[in-house]
Formats: sequence, C-alpha cells, structure tokens
Amino acid sequence: MLLLQRNMVLGLRQACRLQSAPSRLCIQTCSANDSFQLQRPNLTSGGNSSTGGWKVMGTLVGLGAVLAYHDHRCRAAQDSQRVYTKEEVSSHSNSETGIWVTLGSEVFDVTEFVDIHPGGSSKLMLAAGGPLEPFWSLYAFHNQPHVRELLAQYKIGELNPKDNVTPTLETSDPYANDPVRHPALKVNSQRPFNAEPPPELLTENYITPNSIFFTRNHLPVPNLDPDTYRLHVVGAPGSQSLSLSLDDLYKFPKHEITVTLQCAGNRRSEMTQVKEVKGLEWKTGAISTARWSGARLCDVLAQAGHRLCQTEAHVCFEGLDSDPTGTAYGASIPLARALDPEAEVLLAYEMNGQPLPRDHGFPVRVVVPGVVGARHVKWLGKVSVETEESHSHWQRRDYKGFSPSVDWDTVDFDSAPSIQELPVQSAITEPQDGETIEPGEVTIKGYAWSGGGRAVIRVDVSLDGGLTWQAAELDAEEQRPRKAWAWRLWQLQASVPAGQKELNIVCKAVDDSYNVQPDTMAPIWNLRGVLSNAWHRVHVHVAT
Amino acid sequence: MLLLQRNMVLGLRQACRLQSAPSRLCIQTCSANDSFQLQRPNLTSGGNSSTGGWKVMGTLVGLGAVLAYHDHRCRAAQDSQRVYTKEEVSSHSNSETGIWVTLGSEVFDVTEFVDIHPGGSSKLMLAAGGPLEPFWSLYAFHNQPHVRELLAQYKIGELNPKDNVTPTLETSDPYANDPVRHPALKVNSQRPFNAEPPPELLTENYITPNSIFFTRNHLPVPNLDPDTYRLHVVGAPGSQSLSLSLDDLYKFPKHEITVTLQCAGNRRSEMTQVKEVKGLEWKTGAISTARWSGARLCDVLAQAGHRLCQTEAHVCFEGLDSDPTGTAYGASIPLARALDPEAEVLLAYEMNGQPLPRDHGFPVRVVVPGVVGARHVKWLGKVSVETEESHSHWQRRDYKGFSPSVDWDTVDFDSAPSIQELPVQSAITEPQDGETIEPGEVTIKGYAWSGGGRAVIRVDVSLDGGLTWQAAELDAEEQRPRKAWAWRLWQLQASVPAGQKELNIVCKAVDDSYNVQPDTMAPIWNLRGVLSNAWHRVHVHVAT
Repeated sequence: MLLLQRNMVLGLRQACRLQSAPSRLCIQTCSANDSFQLQRPNLTSGGNSSTGGWKVMGTLVGLGAVLAYHDHRCRAAQDSQRVYTKEEVSSHSNSETGIWVTLGSEVFDVTEFVDIHPGGSSKLMLAAGGPLEPFWSLYAFHNQPHVRELLAQYKIGELNPKDNVTPTLETSDPYANDPVRHPALKVNSQRPFNAEPPPELLTENYITPNSIFFTRNHLPVPNLDPDTYRLHVVGAPGSQSLSLSLDDLYKFPKHEITVTLQCAGNRRSEMTQVKEVKGLEWKTGAISTARWSGARLCDVLAQAGHRLCQTEAHVCFEGLDSDPTGTAYGASIPLARALDPEAEVLLAYEMNGQPLPRDHGFPVRVVVPGVVGARHVKWLGKVSVETEESHSHWQRRDYKGFSPSVDWDTVDFDSAPSIQELPVQSAITEPQDGETIEPGEVTIKGYAWSGGGRAVIRVDVSLDGGLTWQAAELDAEEQRPRKAWAWRLWQLQASVPAGQKELNIVCKAVDDSYNVQPDTMAPIWNLRGVLSNAWHRVHVHVAT
Repeated sequence: MLLLQRNMVLGLRQACRLQSAPSRLCIQTCSANDSFQLQRPNLTSGGNSSTGGWKVMGTLVGLGAVLAYHDHRCRAAQDSQRVYTKEEVSSHSNSETGIWVTLGSEVFDVTEFVDIHPGGSSKLMLAAGGPLEPFWSLYAFHNQPHVRELLAQYKIGELNPKDNVTPTLETSDPYANDPVRHPALKVNSQRPFNAEPPPELLTENYITPNSIFFTRNHLPVPNLDPDTYRLHVVGAPGSQSLSLSLDDLYKFPKHEITVTLQCAGNRRSEMTQVKEVKGLEWKTGAISTARWSGARLCDVLAQAGHRLCQTEAHVCFEGLDSDPTGTAYGASIPLARALDPEAEVLLAYEMNGQPLPRDHGFPVRVVVPGVVGARHVKWLGKVSVETEESHSHWQRRDYKGFSPSVDWDTVDFDSAPSIQELPVQSAITEPQDGETIEPGEVTIKGYAWSGGGRAVIRVDVSLDGGLTWQAAELDAEEQRPRKAWAWRLWQLQASVPAGQKELNIVCKAVDDSYNVQPDTMAPIWNLRGVLSNAWHRVHVHVAT
C-alpha cells in the first residue's frame, strides 16, 4: 500500500510539471475540514469551477495519482500556517517519523522527496531534522529559483520565531581555502569548482597546460601537507596493510604515460538543448590531456598482497575531500583492470613534470587510462579491494547511462552499470558556433578520443551538415596498440564553396574497433546528461 | 608521365559510368588511321555529330582524361579486329610487356585494370598471359553481365582459331567436393559457398545449430584427412617448430567458450540501399553463436617458444583452402591478443560438442573472441609469428573501413587498419520488413552483440521510427566482465497504438563502454559495405 501511494505521488509529480493550472485549482478546493486520509474521495468535494481542470489531469495521470496529489497539496496548503519548535523538527529525522528540514524560518516535510533527490537520498538525509543552509553552502547550485520552487511544495509551516536563529552547524565557507585559478577558465560552478578551458585554447597544444586543464571537483579542495600525507592501502587477507608516505611511493618504479581525461558530462550543454537534464553545463572542454607520472597501482597492490582472483572484485578509492559530515568522494574500478600492467593504472604524483596542482589532486591521484574522469580519484587517501563496487553516491547513483525513456520518476540506478570506459568522441574547437568566417579557405580544428585504449583512426568532417564528408588530417603523435590513452588533435583545410552564405560543419570520429559517434543527441539523451557524444555540429556564417 | 596517364584513365572510367552515350559516340569517331599515341589531339578529329556529347563529358572529367579515354576506346575498337596467337598472349604477362588475358576466343589487354581490380591485383595477375576461365570457375561471381561489360572495354582482338581450344589449365569444378548444406540456409553465393540462416531461425536458439550457422567461404572447402592432418607452428628463434596432429592438439588443456562470430559484411544489403558496394548481399544473418572447444592458442604458442615482445608482432594464420595456384586463405591478429590468456583465442576442434563441420573448418579453425569473422581462419594449416600483418589479400586489401568519400578510384588500402574488434551491433529478427502484424500486442525479437568482449547492456526499441524508445528485455545468459564474447538475444512485448496502420520499428544497442549504433547508414557507407551497424529498421503494416 505504501509503495502504491508513492507511485501515485511520483506519477503525480510528473503530471504537475505538465499542468500547473490544476495544482492552483487544487488549493482553491481545500477546506479546513479536509482530513489527512489519503483514501478520501476528493473528486466529489471539488467546487464546480475546478471540475474541468481535474478532468484533464485525471485523464493524464489516472484517478489514483490525482487522489494522492490532491491530499498532498491540501495538507501543504493547510499546514503552512502551523508553527513548529526546533525540537519538533529535529525529532523528524528518519523514515518512521518523517523527514523534516528547515530553510530560514520555513519548515518542510521532504519525506516523499528523499528517494528522488537528484543528488541521492543519502546526501539529503545528512540534513534530516535540521537546517539546509550548511549543505546548500557546500552544494551552492541549490541556490536557484527552480530548486526553491520545488522545495516550496513541501512546506508544512514556520519555525517558532525564538528558534529561528543562526543554525548551530558550522556554516563558514568551506571553499575559502580553494586555490586561485587561471582567469581563462570558463567556470560552470564556483562551489564546488568546475571549469573548462575555452575551445580556442583547448587544442592549441597536444598537452594541456596544468593551469587550464579542465577541473571537476565535487567538494572543497583539501589542503594536505605532503610531509604528513599517508596513503592507506588495505592489505589482502594474511598480508599487512600499507601506510605509504610520498617518499614511499617514490620508491616504486616511476611510470610515465600521456593520458586524456574526460568528464562523463563533457558536451552536456548540447544534450540540454534536446531536453533539460540535471548537471553542470559543460561545453566541449571537459576534456584535457597531460603527461602523468607515478607508481603503477598494480605494483602497490602486489606489495599489499593482492592477486587476481576468480571471483569479481573491485578496487575502491577514497579521496581526502569530504563534506561536513566526513563523507569522502569515492569511486571504484574492476580489480582485473587495476592489476593488469598493460592497463597502466597509476597512483600519480606528477602532472606534466610538476607536482600535482591542488585542483588536480595534490599530492596523489588515481589515473585510470581510457576510463571516465570520475574514477580518477583525487587527493587519494585510501585504497581497498572489495567484493562489490564502491558504495559511494558517485559510483552507484550517478555517472550511469539510461534510455531516453527513463526520467527521475522511473530511474532505477541499479539497472545500469557504472560508466567505466567511455565511447568514441570528437568535437570541433575552431571555428566556433555562430562565428563569421572569411570566404575562400577555412581551417577546421578539433580533438578526437576513445575510451579503453582504442585509437582514433579517422575523423570525418562535413561542411554541409553531414551529406558529404572529408577525412581530416590527424596529428602525428604515436598511438600504441591497445594503449591509445590520449586524444588525437586534427585539422582540415577546406574550400568554402563559392557563394555559400553559411556552413553547417560537422565532425565524427571512428576508433580502431570501428565504433562511430551517433548522428544525433535525442536518441542518446539521458536524465543526467552524460555520454553526450553525437556528431559535433557548428553553424558558421560566411562573410560576403 | 605514366602516373599522369593512369590518373586520366581512372578519372575517365568514373565518367564512363556516368555517361554511357559519349562512349558510344567515341567509337563512331574512330578511324583506321588513328595512331596509338596518347598525345594525339583527338578533340579535333571528332565528327560534328558527337561534339555535343564530348562537351558534356569534357566538363565532367577534364580535358586530360578525355584525351586518354578517347584514345583507349579508339584503340580498343580498332584492335578488336586483330588476331593473336596463344604465344603472343602468353608473352604479355607483366607490367613491362602489358598484361593480356583471354576469355573464350577473345583477347583483352587489362594492363590498366590490374591495379584497380576489386579482388586485388595479385588475384588478376594469376591469370596474366592466359585464360580467365579457371579463375572465373573459382570466383563464380564474375559470371555476371556487368563484369563482362567491364571486360569488353579492354578487348583488343581474337585468338587465332587454331589456338582457341579448351584451356590447358584444369577447369573441372573445384567446388564439386563441397559438402551438402541445410536447405534452410539462404544462399548469397554458391561458389564459394556463402549463406545465412533466415532471421526467424536465427534467434530461435541462443546457440545456433551447426547446420544453420552462417557460412562464409572464400574458396572451395578442402577435404582433409584427420589422420594425416598436421598443424605447422613455426617456432620462435632458438625453438623447435611444431607439427601437431589432432591427437597432439587434444593433449593441450581443453578450453570451452561460447563465442558469437559475425562477418564484417553482415547487413551489407542495407548499406547497398544507400549506394552500390562490392560484396555479398548479406542480410541480418551473417552472425551466429556456438560453443567452441579446443586448445588455447597461447598454450600452443608458448610450446613453440613464443613470448610477448616489446615490438609489435602478429600471429599469421594460413588455411588449407587454396586457389588453383596454391594461394591459401590467410589472416593475422596481434601477438598481444594471441598470447593473452584472458583473450581466450582458440585452436578449435569442436563446435557445439561435435567435430567441426567441413564448412566451418574441419578439423581445426581459429576462434578469436570479439573479433571479426575474417580472422577466424578455417582448415588451419600454419601458424607463424611475424613482424608484420599477414600479407594475405584479405588482411591488407579487404576487410577495412573507409570514409564515405572514398571510392574505388581513390581508395588507399594502406591508410586504414585491418578490422579486428567489431563495433556494437543489433538487429530485429521478428517481425520482418514488410510483414503485416495483428493489432493489439506485437512481440519484437532480435539479437545484439559488441566486439572486444564488451557486453551489451541495453537494447532500445522504437515503434515510431526513433522518436520514443522502450528498453527491451535481454536474455538471462551470463556475461563475464571484459569477456562477453557472445550475443544477447532480446525481446519486447509492446502495445500497438490503437488505429495505427503501420509501424516503423527500430532497434539500437548500447555496450558496456556505452558505445551506441549510429542512427543512419549513409554516413558510415564504405565501398566494401562492411561495418554496417546503423539502427536496424523494419517497416510493418498493421492488419485492420
């Protein structure tokens, strides 16, 4: 029964987005005598003026959902007059009591929202029974009108004015110690810091300079002392665990490789044009390439007694970045990859010949060639081998791909594997969308990359939206078979057809398993806006 | 200069396909006094009646090509009256003397055609100075009007009647000993035998029965005696070579795995609808799955002293099937894959618990999980480790992918890597294109597979041509991480929208590197019609 009711509410919420008028009508039909019983036949209690609206909505989502929603709205409308003490709020902190939170002087019952919180239920539960402010200062993207509007639906009343004081939890800016960044970076989010280099700088160099390497932080940047830093490696059964200083790590054979890192959300802004998604609006720059040096993970794991086993196992990484409750960023990769010397997974302490910059994991981060950026855990604190994937939110409730038909009301995160290897990708960095180019010749530049060590073997470029194609010239950087961890930069010198007033420039790459990019975004749309690898399209004007 | 002339002729041939009228006009303008000099200003010698046609053609391909072509045609028209002795023909067998061949009583100068022979120049050179019949009986697809028409352009005369006797080369049917096949197979070519199971049988069983497993032969099926059969494995420097009987192979640990084989040309018939390609018209059935048992190649190579080396190396396979000159089918795979126990490359002697059927390589074939069928060499005779890929025609001049802009006049086979791992693929087997289904519910069935051991994680199905999608139900067969060598069968029970008169059913698969199939065929079109993995589309009518 409880499940049934939740489904009704979920279905309803969808309908609510489609039909804002009926929800206003709903409030008008509430009376002080409305009971809180979900089973009450609300349809008969509605005034005549609202009947038409209800009919539309009933057709849309079915009778059950309507009943549940009407009750929910009515309760909210009535309860928002009530006053609660801080103690009453704090006693609502689990699923049995219901889950309440406060923002300023307002009290919200978010019990029904917890399971569908886009950031994961565990994150919202951290605030259960207390104020949201400390968490919203950490995840500052909550400070947006549509988030406040969503929250308003759950308002049940006001805090007792004498309790409405500055929250006792520490709210000082946890980002105050973040490093100073390069002004060229295009910032998608300040807190946590997420930024990408502009396209015209991105493909200037095969190796991206550290200062403009794209930055994807999930939490504040920790300030770690290299002298006291220790990496904890949990030993295999019967073996000693390791506590490695930087000097200890330096004693392992130093391994150096060129690896491209790409965020799963690279090019999300194009997917958003199909339909709204949740996530940072990355353009084409959530990808960069560096020369990484460090100890091979397989060597470190071997020293801790780990061997390949027949059963499935995972290497879990924990960062030293954490939220106010001490929950760290975490991720995992399969043990088979971690132990394969050919996979060249690194515990990196140098980036382009320098100690890692703070934004990129100082003093030690994981580098997993050919795999999505989210697994390259920064500020690495702990390595362990487990029978299951990391229980981190970012491993299990994020960074997964779904069918375009799946939305936040129907998503089952357990049904999809965590993203590891990424699909083939390419983008145009010059010219840029909307630019005006000279007639005659045009130089088109960009990058191409594929996951899993698969080399890019060809990039096709079209000037006519994909009707005809020319193969671009690829850079001459060496690509090792099965270990093509780094991108290919490419360019094409093409003639602008005489009299042409505009060009629809398109690029698509092919990797050595002959996988190609899909033509369009809509069929790969997914609710988190990840894996956005359709043909990249740029529309330019030709000067006359 | 020679190169320049060849380019003219190549350009011209293209024009010839576009403009058959001018080529007829050309013959009319020839006179007995035409010299054989390419430089002769033919344009001025044309009669008035043909000027218009020439103008069109000149605009198309440029003056140089026109000059060359006119000369070629005129020479052909004049020479076709001449009579040659068999000795004269046989003295034209290399590029210095020119390359002549005969068919019946006709003599042809194919010097300019050799390099653009779709089957490779080496194959055509086998017939240089002699009759084509023994080769056309082997490659029976030459017996088609368009091939004879192409050849006719190169006719230079007739054989001396007293020399026009049955060719001395053995022309008895080399396919006479081919095995008897299952009548359900849909035959794409009888000689060599190429056939696929009908879609409705293909996905009846997860394991394809041996008798309807798709068959891709390049040559006649050899008739090998299991008692005298020997596999020659060339030893590493300093190690003994091996000559293994079947009993010797049985002594290696027996390894059994389920592997899907797919021809690079599977679904070529859909690519042909975009633009003509060269190759067998496979539908969706050039793919099948079996349980294979045999010795692991890594174990056999180790016994012959082979170890992984730092430099690139390849394992070359030679079949015991061969053409009349003794040239065997051959292919190669990278040594790194061959020696990797996790890649599970087999020297298979059993298929679904039975000795290999003759059509599938009796007594021993290679099975390379996750890799294109062309590398799974049948009737295996020799294994060697080389610094370069196999020099076989099928490794170097076939089974490669190119940009849609590349045609037979511009193709550079050295510019593309040989196909090894295949891209993600799926197809609908029920209902079939053009079928009429009942209203109400429709059951849609199909298969999905990806190369390189990448598991299929999802199949999306659309009933409206790709606007909306539903995830299909995948079979429950176990997929091992990184070793998902076999397909997933899938099905979807869907409601046919009321009143709908037709459905455009589409499927697309996603593998665990989140690679997807491209939306359409035209942008992946290539001159050999391989790698045809766009969304599969089926149009059905709904009964009223």
